[in-house]
Amino acid sequence: MLRPLGKRVIIKRLEAEEKTASGIVLPSQAKEKPQMAEVVAVSKDVEELKVGDKVVFKKFVGTEIKVDNDEVLICEMTDILAVVE
Amino acid sequence: MLRPLGKRVIIKRLEAEEKTASGIVLPSQAKEKPQMAEVVAVSKDVEELKVGDKVVFKKFVGTEIKVDNDEVLICEMTDILAVVE
Amino acid sequence: MLRPLGKRVIIKRLEAEEKTASGIVLPSQAKEKPQMAEVVAVSKDVEELKVGDKVVFKKFVGTEIKVDNDEVLICEMTDILAVVE
Amino acid sequence: MLRPLGKRVIIKRLEAEEKTASGIVLPSQAKEKPQMAEVVAVSKDVEELKVGDKVVFKKFVGTEIKVDNDEVLICEMTDILAVVE
Amino acid sequence: MLRPLGKRVIIKRLEAEEKTASGIVLPSQAKEKPQMAEVVAVSKDVEELKVGDKVVFKKFVGTEIKVDNDEVLICEMTDILAVVE
Amino acid sequence: MLRPLGKRVIIKRLEAEEKTASGIVLPSQAKEKPQMAEVVAVSKDVEELKVGDKVVFKKFVGTEIKVDNDEVLICEMTDILAVVE
Amino acid sequence: MLRPLGKRVIIKRLEAEEKTASGIVLPSQAKEKPQMAEVVAVSKDVEELKVGDKVVFKKFVGTEIKVDNDEVLICEMTDILAVVE
Repeated sequence: MLRPLGKRVIIKRLEAEEKTASGIVLPSQAKEKPQMAEVVAVSKDVEELKVGDKVVFKKFVGTEIKVDNDEVLICEMTDILAVVE
Repeated sequence: MLRPLGKRVIIKRLEAEEKTASGIVLPSQAKEKPQMAEVVAVSKDVEELKVGDKVVFKKFVGTEIKVDNDEVLICEMTDILAVVE
Repeated sequence: MLRPLGKRVIIKRLEAEEKTASGIVLPSQAKEKPQMAEVVAVSKDVEELKVGDKVVFKKFVGTEIKVDNDEVLICEMTDILAVVE
Repeated sequence: MLRPLGKRVIIKRLEAEEKTASGIVLPSQAKEKPQMAEVVAVSKDVEELKVGDKVVFKKFVGTEIKVDNDEVLICEMTDILAVVE
Repeated sequence: MLRPLGKRVIIKRLEAEEKTASGIVLPSQAKEKPQMAEVVAVSKDVEELKVGDKVVFKKFVGTEIKVDNDEVLICEMTDILAVVE
Repeated sequence: MLRPLGKRVIIKRLEAEEKTASGIVLPSQAKEKPQMAEVVAVSKDVEELKVGDKVVFKKFVGTEIKVDNDEVLICEMTDILAVVE
Repeated sequence: MLRPLGKRVIIKRLEAEEKTASGIVLPSQAKEKPQMAEVVAVSKDVEELKVGDKVVFKKFVGTEIKVDNDEVLICEMTDILAVVE
């Protein structure tokens, strides 16, 4: 398992249908990757989020890596804009 | 519901008629989007504003997302210039 | 009424005759807008100025908005250079 | 032996097969060097990592040097994104 | 009277003959404006200087304004390099 | 003798054979100057290093001067990456 | 007399023969101005140096002025690299 260091989280992009269920839809710039994601790991230094949280994040941020065939994104907390409650 | 993280708020742009009622009108650069908005959500870290406040914000800031067909904007508090009292 | 947030003030540019009365005149680069103004609102975070103060401010700063047909400018305190006493 | 100074660690890139064993695979931009590494030395100022830890790090960071024929990389801690647990 | 705000002073450039009397002459790049000045006002936040002090300041800094036909310069304290004693 | 000021050290580049003895070799970009050096002086503000330490430092940093025919380099401590133990 | 303000000193470049006597010679880029100097004045905020100290300083820094026909340089302390002991 990957544990992020510093003020970072690891997130996994949500597919369109998952976003619709939460009532939140991103603008229809169709070619861009979605900006909603689920938190899959949090650093010990991060208190505001927990695994499973759904978040909106800034475009063009983070480092993409592949874990067991899943593409995930390691992001700075400052790149996470909001959480779905 | 979306809750912003860090020093952020979520705001929704006001239409022209709503701005007129408050006596505040933005300069008539007709093609620009309005710079007045209503606060729809505040982070736990924000004390200066509350939901329902009407604010003036900087141009070209924030991240636009769509929530239940409403276009809203997630902004840093430093991009909120003033509040209508 | 508009109340600025953060370390900000709202100011209204002074006309030429008002500036002459105070004995302070800006350099005659005729096409530039005047750099003297009267404070019309102050944030709760600003202690150095009060409404009615006449100030000199940096060029090309602030955000212009219109309140009841008056054009005013929302500025950072660091853009206010001096006050007339 | 080399001991890094400041908030730095020395890491050695992992080969493809080692990464597969940990279940973590980086995106297939084949010509880039791998972004997973094993920690081979830590500064006295670094508490979050220890020798032997496997980490993911940012691309294009650090200073490459050769120690006893091994190519290693001296990195700032802020360039280490996550650790495998 | 103008009172500067923040860590600022208002200064008035000295003419060539005044500088000679103090024994300090700036390099003979004849077309540049002189870099010596007399302090004419200090902010409440400035303790290192007082009105009447003669100072050397950095080129190309400050905001020029005209007070009762005198051209003065509002400068940051960090732009004042030295004082004549 | 030269004593560096601030968070600085003075170092002298090591020749190739000296580096081999320590088992540490820099990458074979033959035309670059070596990146290993011996500390010849330390500022009073530097505690992590002492005279005689062998260090690895960042490329293209520091100010070169000549002391009694020796070329040495005055560097910021942040440019010293690691020490040989 | 000139007294520097802030973390600054005033220095006077040393001639070649003076540098030789101290055993320190700068690299032979003949057209550059010398980088060794004698301290002629220190700010009250500077504790590390005193008048008469011989120092090595960074190239291309400071403000040149002329005092009683001597060309001197007002420098930030961070531009003074080392002192001769």
